[in-house]
Amino acid sequence: MEHINVGLVGITGYAGMELCRLLSMHPSMRLTMACSRAEAGKRLGNFYPFLEGLPGADIVISQFSTEEAASKCDLVFLAVPAGTAMKMVPALLRADLKVVDFSADFRLNHRPVFEEWYGLPHEAESLLPEAVYGLPELYAGQIAGARLVANPGCYPSSVILGLYAALQEHIIRTDNIIIDSKSGATGAGRKAAVPSLFCEVSDSFRAYGLPRHRHTPEIEQELGKIAGEAMTVQFSPHLLPMNRGILSTMYTYLRDPAPTPEEIHEVFRETWKKSPWIRVLPLGKLPETRYVRGTMFCDIGIVPDLRTKRLIVISVIDNLCRGAAGQAMANANLMYGLPVDTGLHEVAPLF
Amino acid sequence: MEHINVGLVGITGYAGMELCRLLSMHPSMRLTMACSRAEAGKRLGNFYPFLEGLPGADIVISQFSTEEAASKCDLVFLAVPAGTAMKMVPALLRADLKVVDFSADFRLNHRPVFEEWYGLPHEAESLLPEAVYGLPELYAGQIAGARLVANPGCYPSSVILGLYAALQEHIIRTDNIIIDSKSGATGAGRKAAVPSLFCEVSDSFRAYGLPRHRHTPEIEQELGKIAGEAMTVQFSPHLLPMNRGILSTMYTYLRDPAPTPEEIHEVFRETWKKSPWIRVLPLGKLPETRYVRGTMFCDIGIVPDLRTKRLIVISVIDNLCRGAAGQAMANANLMYGLPVDTGLHEVAPLF
Amino acid sequence: MEHINVGLVGITGYAGMELCRLLSMHPSMRLTMACSRAEAGKRLGNFYPFLEGLPGADIVISQFSTEEAASKCDLVFLAVPAGTAMKMVPALLRADLKVVDFSADFRLNHRPVFEEWYGLPHEAESLLPEAVYGLPELYAGQIAGARLVANPGCYPSSVILGLYAALQEHIIRTDNIIIDSKSGATGAGRKAAVPSLFCEVSDSFRAYGLPRHRHTPEIEQELGKIAGEAMTVQFSPHLLPMNRGILSTMYTYLRDPAPTPEEIHEVFRETWKKSPWIRVLPLGKLPETRYVRGTMFCDIGIVPDLRTKRLIVISVIDNLCRGAAGQAMANANLMYGLPVDTGLHEVAPLF
Amino acid sequence: MEHINVGLVGITGYAGMELCRLLSMHPSMRLTMACSRAEAGKRLGNFYPFLEGLPGADIVISQFSTEEAASKCDLVFLAVPAGTAMKMVPALLRADLKVVDFSADFRLNHRPVFEEWYGLPHEAESLLPEAVYGLPELYAGQIAGARLVANPGCYPSSVILGLYAALQEHIIRTDNIIIDSKSGATGAGRKAAVPSLFCEVSDSFRAYGLPRHRHTPEIEQELGKIAGEAMTVQFSPHLLPMNRGILSTMYTYLRDPAPTPEEIHEVFRETWKKSPWIRVLPLGKLPETRYVRGTMFCDIGIVPDLRTKRLIVISVIDNLCRGAAGQAMANANLMYGLPVDTGLHEVAPLF
Repeated sequence: MEHINVGLVGITGYAGMELCRLLSMHPSMRLTMACSRAEAGKRLGNFYPFLEGLPGADIVISQFSTEEAASKCDLVFLAVPAGTAMKMVPALLRADLKVVDFSADFRLNHRPVFEEWYGLPHEAESLLPEAVYGLPELYAGQIAGARLVANPGCYPSSVILGLYAALQEHIIRTDNIIIDSKSGATGAGRKAAVPSLFCEVSDSFRAYGLPRHRHTPEIEQELGKIAGEAMTVQFSPHLLPMNRGILSTMYTYLRDPAPTPEEIHEVFRETWKKSPWIRVLPLGKLPETRYVRGTMFCDIGIVPDLRTKRLIVISVIDNLCRGAAGQAMANANLMYGLPVDTGLHEVAPLF
Repeated sequence: MEHINVGLVGITGYAGMELCRLLSMHPSMRLTMACSRAEAGKRLGNFYPFLEGLPGADIVISQFSTEEAASKCDLVFLAVPAGTAMKMVPALLRADLKVVDFSADFRLNHRPVFEEWYGLPHEAESLLPEAVYGLPELYAGQIAGARLVANPGCYPSSVILGLYAALQEHIIRTDNIIIDSKSGATGAGRKAAVPSLFCEVSDSFRAYGLPRHRHTPEIEQELGKIAGEAMTVQFSPHLLPMNRGILSTMYTYLRDPAPTPEEIHEVFRETWKKSPWIRVLPLGKLPETRYVRGTMFCDIGIVPDLRTKRLIVISVIDNLCRGAAGQAMANANLMYGLPVDTGLHEVAPLF
Repeated sequence: MEHINVGLVGITGYAGMELCRLLSMHPSMRLTMACSRAEAGKRLGNFYPFLEGLPGADIVISQFSTEEAASKCDLVFLAVPAGTAMKMVPALLRADLKVVDFSADFRLNHRPVFEEWYGLPHEAESLLPEAVYGLPELYAGQIAGARLVANPGCYPSSVILGLYAALQEHIIRTDNIIIDSKSGATGAGRKAAVPSLFCEVSDSFRAYGLPRHRHTPEIEQELGKIAGEAMTVQFSPHLLPMNRGILSTMYTYLRDPAPTPEEIHEVFRETWKKSPWIRVLPLGKLPETRYVRGTMFCDIGIVPDLRTKRLIVISVIDNLCRGAAGQAMANANLMYGLPVDTGLHEVAPLF
Repeated sequence: MEHINVGLVGITGYAGMELCRLLSMHPSMRLTMACSRAEAGKRLGNFYPFLEGLPGADIVISQFSTEEAASKCDLVFLAVPAGTAMKMVPALLRADLKVVDFSADFRLNHRPVFEEWYGLPHEAESLLPEAVYGLPELYAGQIAGARLVANPGCYPSSVILGLYAALQEHIIRTDNIIIDSKSGATGAGRKAAVPSLFCEVSDSFRAYGLPRHRHTPEIEQELGKIAGEAMTVQFSPHLLPMNRGILSTMYTYLRDPAPTPEEIHEVFRETWKKSPWIRVLPLGKLPETRYVRGTMFCDIGIVPDLRTKRLIVISVIDNLCRGAAGQAMANANLMYGLPVDTGLHEVAPLF
């Protein structure tokens, strides 16, 4: 098979590191450009000793330029901060490259919503209509034809996959949804900052970003599309003293008349029966983040509570693989007509 | 000062271990009896090497008998499983001992509620009316006169202290309360079991006991007393990959007309201004479990969300100190007319 | 390619769990039998939720019998305690099966040494001469022709690979070698026991098994073969508050005249230049366990100290992959003429 | 009792944080000045939320000046980097203040040794002769009369206490001593740096600073004084994925004729029988860092190995309390004629 040459801008963060790992195992994608302002000039294998001896180790890290990308790459992954991607994408598209963007710059369909929640002017509004939200289970067809894919946020990935079946099949109310999410510390990024030090994070637990975390409008937008109506949710993220994984506990009200627990379970099973990455657990089982570690799986546990008339849905994903780099690779697979799970078969250690 | 001689039945669990630690620092309580079926015959300092060289180390662990208790103790702490305490308490009271019971046996006022949630017949129903729920901030007067104190559960302690001000002052609705709690692994106890092994707990996160954890009726009973009406809540505990600490994220609806954030904050501050262990954080600050580690503090963060008309309250406690052994000692202090915080001044390491 | 059918006896331990993970990714080995006394009757995918949806999930766990093995398997992996494998192996070999044994039963060449250190009579002494010590870098040829491979211990794997170059090339003395090893908690096994509970292991560190850990004679035997003389070493293992990984810090004396640091480094590089799994770090770099997580890599850092005339060698491996299941699979690959790294290409998440 | 007013320069590091914790419990020392360049102007209780409601919380952090110190303090603790303390101490002493310095500036008796290992010129050489090495068990008398105490390094504290009895009583050789130490991550300090991030430290283990860590000459100097001869040791520190605690595994050779294990044990017991903070474990028991967490204890395990003629000594301390702030407070107690353990009685949670 011919190789697909890909570039990665932003190798120093955890999502970029994860993509380096995954690309080293992909049978047909080949990393040909790795960019970082701070680390330019270093061999990638020196910067990431785990890569030594593996595909990609010999690449020399460079400063990003559209010219290098155009000459070396078919597709570019952007793992850069919000506000930066929108400056890079137009030129990359003009140079006939495909782009998968990890940031939020192209996830929100409406400029004012982006500007309200991110506090930045949007500089590439004209591209918003063509950007495809890269959740393969929901939008595989559009992703396949896209030039620009907005890779979903980690929390939204866990939430949308968790609630999709219940909203789609109208078994829950659309108001009064509360999402209590907990993420491993890789979600806080790889910036040198005291609150992210080992001694500050280990043996402790806290909420953050309440009540207006930036993933809120992304969740509301996508859940609203599924439900067919505008939605407002309460979203509260927390920081776990562990590296990887997101667990979202989602509280919803069952519609009247409430289906039985078995009927609810059947709705979830039926919805996902052709999606090998979505594993609906048996009634009575609850998911654990370790079981999806380093993979694309989303495990979903459903807890109907007849006493309170609620349906609690718990979903777990790996925030770096499903929530970032793995999903980006799945999207790139679709954009090149490859099976969505190419290079994503490995089962990482549980711990 | 004369010593108060105390016994501890159930030294091998984490709550018992914590009480051993705290008693070694108490100026006037003296451990005179330490019971464990499995470890009888061992010196306490050998069993708990951290105690070596400290008060209590030379006690020889014994099998529990009312006779030994009667001859050696003024008060007995029971750190035994649900169902066991109710068998021990009547004889201890007849022997004129005071009792602080860590279990749930005397927390629920109504026998049928106990039997429904714990699946056990209650064998000492006649003592339920006199048992006092041992939350010092709420019931100090009754505790002072009690023979039998039912030490609160760890989760309920965090929840009741967190919601008390808002319910008492009628600023939130009593329906539609969701409590998403997360506890360190000491909460799962010290029993040898595969799911509690280091390799199973570390680097992972999961919910458990949904939707009917046994602390639910205790929470509903006590919140109901504060609100002055029967209450139903949704309570969901989760297991954190760390040792100590509980954080409860509590979702409530503000009553109409909603007070301003500053007014809400003032209600909390005013309610707790004479309670040195309750620290209401400034608006915009969120609590962290590490800041209360090994102490009696309950730190409370309040998050009014005007967008959703909700009040989110986040409380943190140390599950072993405030949630078990420290609170038991505070109750014992009150039962002997000592200042409630006697022996509870130390500030444990954050980490 | 035709499948190689393999059985695994002892699925419940961490090495067995790791082999289940690795087998689910192997292109030509297929798990056809999974045995456990305690868990017989359960579907493997139910017992290990991470396997759900992957190859092997539908196998029903069985009690071990030679008959089932003979009818379903070409090769059997034994992940059973010391003393048990020696009872199973003779019948398996008679049934014309190949065996890779994870235990120590066939690692020590001399029965009296086994019996002294393991305190058990050896019941299959006649097989000791044909058992091959399964360290692929050293014994690939013999492994390829073996019926019975004794898979090395985790600590010995890290030590032998670390010291091989220096002993082989006679740059260090053979007396006075001290090996200070540190292992993640998976090394302590998956038995329900209080000292292995999360709360006992996390936030703590201790040595264990001093001064006569059972891996000592295995290390001495294999180092002695390399050096060409009998050797005595000091070996001290410690338990790390983390899941995976072994780091061995090895203190040796340089022979006179001592080579320069650059010459020493060159000896190591030259020795391992054709072994892709052995990565000799540049002078001045030290290895970290995370960089080999879930892989077959052994990273080696060398620290010549001119002040003390010592050579310190630090090696890291993943104790479950290189130190157990991955190495077993590599051995099985060799026994079937496959490339040694078949199915072992994946790069696990660093964390 | 009258208060002793103390200042702390360098509150933002972990040692400074620990001293804030300990001072809040001291019956007669009172924090009256807290300095930090970066945090000047903040209330201490805001900066350290765990202090809120405790003594010291209302102090406003200031920039250090000798004038403020002279007007507010009797004694100053310096928790500042190497090279900074030597600039502050002369003026503080001239202002008639006592000083306990956490840094290495006054630990090494000889300027050239300091300059060789620290790479800095010494600017206060004239004070070296009067500075007392603040290990209370060895130098209590001199500390009591000192104006300037050099608080020992964390690793040296664990090593010197561990080897003292064996060197003092001449049961081990003075050559060929290897010290393999492992420290929790608080030892790496509280600077914002990528290698100290949670995700980089957790689930991993590594050595660092080999073979010339700066604590080496301090260890050699103090061991040499005990042995009565110049000594050279091999010292190798490692970084543990946990917060607190140091464990040092020390390899020594027994002198001929070697005493029996019981005799060795008796030497240790006898040496330390009047030192309540030094706990010599029974033969066969090994120390664990958790048992000394947050305390001044040094637990020592001794492992004679007749097979190799070595004596292995394992010592554990809490690196922040015994290895820094607690020891500093003990020194200050001695300097004011207080019992050495004043304010150091508390028993921190094991975990």
